[in-house]
Formats: sequence, C-alpha cells, structure tokens
Amino acid sequence: MTANYDVLAFDVFGTVVDWHGSIAREVDAMSLGVDGATFASAWRAGYKPAMDRVRRGDLGWTRIDDLHRMILDEILEKFGVRKLDERAKRELNLVWHRLSPWPDAVAGLRRLKSRYTICTLSNGNLGLLADMAKRAEIPWDLILSAEVFRHYKPDPETYLGVAEIFDVAPGRTMLVAAHKDDLAAAKACGLATAFVERPREYGAGQRKDIGRDHPFDFHATDFEDLATQLGC
Amino acid sequence: MTANYDVLAFDVFGTVVDWHGSIAREVDAMSLGVDGATFASAWRAGYKPAMDRVRRGDLGWTRIDDLHRMILDEILEKFGVRKLDERAKRELNLVWHRLSPWPDAVAGLRRLKSRYTICTLSNGNLGLLADMAKRAEIPWDLILSAEVFRHYKPDPETYLGVAEIFDVAPGRTMLVAAHKDDLAAAKACGLATAFVERPREYGAGQRKDIGRDHPFDFHATDFEDLATQLGC
Repeated sequence: MTANYDVLAFDVFGTVVDWHGSIAREVDAMSLGVDGATFASAWRAGYKPAMDRVRRGDLGWTRIDDLHRMILDEILEKFGVRKLDERAKRELNLVWHRLSPWPDAVAGLRRLKSRYTICTLSNGNLGLLADMAKRAEIPWDLILSAEVFRHYKPDPETYLGVAEIFDVAPGRTMLVAAHKDDLAAAKACGLATAFVERPREYGAGQRKDIGRDHPFDFHATDFEDLATQLGC
Repeated sequence: MTANYDVLAFDVFGTVVDWHGSIAREVDAMSLGVDGATFASAWRAGYKPAMDRVRRGDLGWTRIDDLHRMILDEILEKFGVRKLDERAKRELNLVWHRLSPWPDAVAGLRRLKSRYTICTLSNGNLGLLADMAKRAEIPWDLILSAEVFRHYKPDPETYLGVAEIFDVAPGRTMLVAAHKDDLAAAKACGLATAFVERPREYGAGQRKDIGRDHPFDFHATDFEDLATQLGC
C-alpha cells in the first residue's frame, strides 16, 4: 500500500511538548513566591498578542525567544517578582528550550518516522526547537519554523511553505496539532489535518475543546494512536 | 573543562558525503553510454557558476534542486544522452538527495554530537538535506541551508546566520569543511574553522589541495580524527 501522505508537520507547543507543566515545575522550583501554574498561563497568554503585532507589521520580524522575553519582563513586574538579575531572567526565558515532551510523543514519532517524513511547523525559533529536540531526543527529519518563512502561523505562507520545501502537493502534507484554529488554517490551504487531544495542555483545572465534532481528517488521542491510524 | 565552541556547522557536499562516487555509480548503473565519473565532474562543474548567477542577482532566488536540473539538461545535451524522458530526468536529478556519507562521517558526527550542537551549513536546499539525512541516518541537531538565509555561501549572511540562529558569538561557532575557500570566508566572518582532507572528493585521478599549510584552527584527516581533537 502506498501511503496517502508524504510529510507530517507537527505543531510543537502543546502538541509535542507540555509547556504548561514544564514551566510550572521550573517556576515552582525557583521559589519566587508565585504559583508556577498561574505564571505559566500568564506567560503563554501574552504569546498570541505578541505574534499578532508582528503579523500586522506593528513590530518588525522578532523571534519567539525575544517575544517571550518581552512578555516575561511584563509578567515579572505584574507578579511583583523583583529578585531576578539579568542573568537569571535570561536563564528563565530559556525554559522554553527545555520543555518536556508528552509521555507518548517520542515513541509515537519514532513509529511515524518509519513511514513518513516528520518535521516541525512551529512558531518557535530554530535555535529553540533544535535545543528542545537535542535535549529530549526528538527524532525530527527536519526542523521548520516560522523563522524560515518569516511569517507566523496562521499565515498561509507557513503551511504552504512546508509543501514547497519538500516539493510535494499541499494535500500530501498533513498538519498534526492540538489546536483547532491552527488546523483550520492549514485545511484552508489544502493540507490534510490531524487533531490530537492533549486535554491537559493548559493544566489540570482548565477547559479545552477536544470534541470530535470537527472537519479534520483524523482525530487521535495521542501520537501512538495516530501512528496506528496511519498504518505505522 | 568547558568546550571552547558551542556549534559545529558542516559543509555537506564533499565534506560529509561523497558526491562524486555516488553520482558516478548511479550514472554507470543506468547504462547511458557515458562515463559516470566524467559525468559527475561535469555536473558539479556547473554548480558554482549557476550559484554565482544567483549571488550576482542575474537570477532570482533559485534552489539547488532547480540549478542542478538546469545543469543536467545542459550536460545531457552535451554528452549526447537523448533516451531519458521527463520522469527519468527528474529521478536522476534527485541523485543529489541520495548521496552517501564518507565511511567515517556518521560515526564521527555521533561522537561530535555528544559534546557539541551539530548542524549543516550547505548550499543544498532543505528538502534535499532532509532526504539525505533520513536515508543515511545522519544525526543533525539542525539542518541549516542557504535556503534559510536566501544567500549562498560564501556570502557572509550564511556564516553569521548560523551564529545568530543559535544566539552565540561567531567565534563560538566552527565551520567544518573540505574546501579552503569556504573556510577562508567563514574565518573572515570571525568563525572558528576546521579543514578536513577528503582527498578523493573529485574521484581517484584528480588532484586536490589537502596541504597543512593553511590558517585554519584545526586540520583533520576525517571526522573521527576531528572528534578526537575536539575532546569527544
């Protein structure tokens, strides 16, 4: 049987790695007098508005490391954390390079890699994604980022850019993501789409839409499930 | 001991993989009535002039896959090969995605990866480099290409681009290459440099300067030797 797809492109934050849990744990361990989970959520909440400033052109091209740092400075102020020096702030900002994969992610990716080309399609910058993959031994065939396309998702240049890089039709490229807005934008560009649940992406107490009532090609509980559905 | 370098960036064609031998073998196996070694050399000889057209701006951004195809069409004509149809030409052009590593390359890279971040810095396009790495199991931490920078080596944007991607000083980034002109350009940008001999890059009968009389930081007979010199 010939596979119907050549390339699987993965969203990363929340889909492959647990940003909320990883950041909450690291912040709690620093004893800053703030709740790690609340701090993680606040940091992430600044992410989309910051990218939208770049997407609208209010801010020139700025990579996520620098956007994360701008947001961090704001929330340290807001949470009243004043004991970190410049070096400690820089080190904390790099927590995004140290996010841990969900328990099924690396094993599932190894299975998927045996049959498909697997790559990232993340708004994270290349250095961040490379550090993360090296640390967690995530076996990407290629790391692709908004930084390559100089456009952030959900701009069409990102989804179509993956197909162009591999010289395949958009329909033979699949976006795998835990976020329905990301998948909807990919689908509008003609890509195949797979939704992965990740119910605890925002932490234990928060709600997230993981319903099966969606127009995407696949619905998977995790990457092992996706690998099985895709014949790996 | 703290390492003096963070990132090792590798030239690919000739440094990591044996383009001449790989292409000669594949062309000989096709029984086209041409000598594979001569054909490989002719194909490669068109490479620098084609890139220089892009570098000078005579040609808009064109990736190597497309430059290789333009040169292929010319040399098929020149060698009098008329029996290939469009599909066969496309398939032959992809031989550059199937180049085999030198015998020491993957083992040496595994050792170097244990201590350093290892990436490509190649004029080859991202899809080409990803296919090559997947097939030969080359364990890059990150695949970087002229395609990311929209500049071909030896433009400074490529060498400085690697340091910028990883947010390190140029002097903590080392270019590893079998070509002294590539290394000289990297050195002029402040990168550290390592020359690797690869005496048979152009085939058995051809001469190549592998002398030790050069201004680079390291001189290695192969990647295993480089790994030893760099403390891996």
